Amino acid sequence: MTLHTAIHKSFVLERVYPHAPARLFNAFKDPAKKARWFVGGEGFIVDGATWDFRVGGWERFKFRFGEKGPPMTNDTVFMEIVENQRIVFAYSMTIGGNPLSVSLTTVEFVAQDGGKKTLLRFSEHDTFLDGNDGLDSRREGTTGLLQSLANELEKFP
Amino acid sequence: MTLHTAIHKSFVLERVYPHAPARLFNAFKDPAKKARWFVGGEGFIVDGATWDFRVGGWERFKFRFGEKGPPMTNDTVFMEIVENQRIVFAYSMTIGGNPLSVSLTTVEFVAQDGGKKTLLRFSEHDTFLDGNDGLDSRREGTTGLLQSLANELEKFP
Repeated sequence: MTLHTAIHKSFVLERVYPHAPARLFNAFKDPAKKARWFVGGEGFIVDGATWDFRVGGWERFKFRFGEKGPPMTNDTVFMEIVENQRIVFAYSMTIGGNPLSVSLTTVEFVAQDGGKKTLLRFSEHDTFLDGNDGLDSRREGTTGLLQSLANELEKFP
Repeated sequence: MTLHTAIHKSFVLERVYPHAPARLFNAFKDPAKKARWFVGGEGFIVDGATWDFRVGGWERFKFRFGEKGPPMTNDTVFMEIVENQRIVFAYSMTIGGNPLSVSLTTVEFVAQDGGKKTLLRFSEHDTFLDGNDGLDSRREGTTGLLQSLANELEKFP
């Protein structure tokens, strides 16, 4: 019998963007935008993406990092949404067909400077499964995503 | 504009049951059993329950604590299941129609004493929303559920 383990980790990232909360929120809501910054990163090969931004909706991604990378999946389900203010979602990941993690993520959009800027607070709890412990790479990957989001907002006003 | 806050808390409960892991697991899987121990607690009035124990399936509960208690909901979605060994689920709760929390829970069933006993490890991360902070009552309620599960297994072999 395989030993199935679970390790629990958390991290929080904050970044201030020179845009209104509605623009940030819309980059998560609009599939055309999210496709660019969320799964369009350099080196990533996207094998599939479905979109359904609403409470109870699933967004499913299949991808690899480079041609020789193992197949990975990300199945995201939205648990709670407050327009322009908050998104709470859970997502499970697999790598090479095996469980990697299940996570609960809260993204808060806090208006600053009279609504001209937004503090994005990204709080994630990760349950790493079956011997995986990818906290450092998860934090690093998410930091990259927040940069990718900044690029998206700069390029496509 | 209402201020939407999020507070992050975690707790872990462990309890050893004098039953094999498969019996524990089945009490989560079988709606007839789960209906008794999970929503059948003293004082609880159940206004609705739907069942769908599989990855991606939703189980939805409507209930009140006493006739005069505010209406509450629990919408649970299963993220990862390993038969007889592990269940990972996310659930959102509302109280009086307002968001209360979103949680990620990992239940592990660890065989002990050659499989005659089971260590149940219940690890939960709670994101409490909009000023709620119910860590103590959540931990207390969950402790009660684990006792209710013990009663169920004792009564219905």
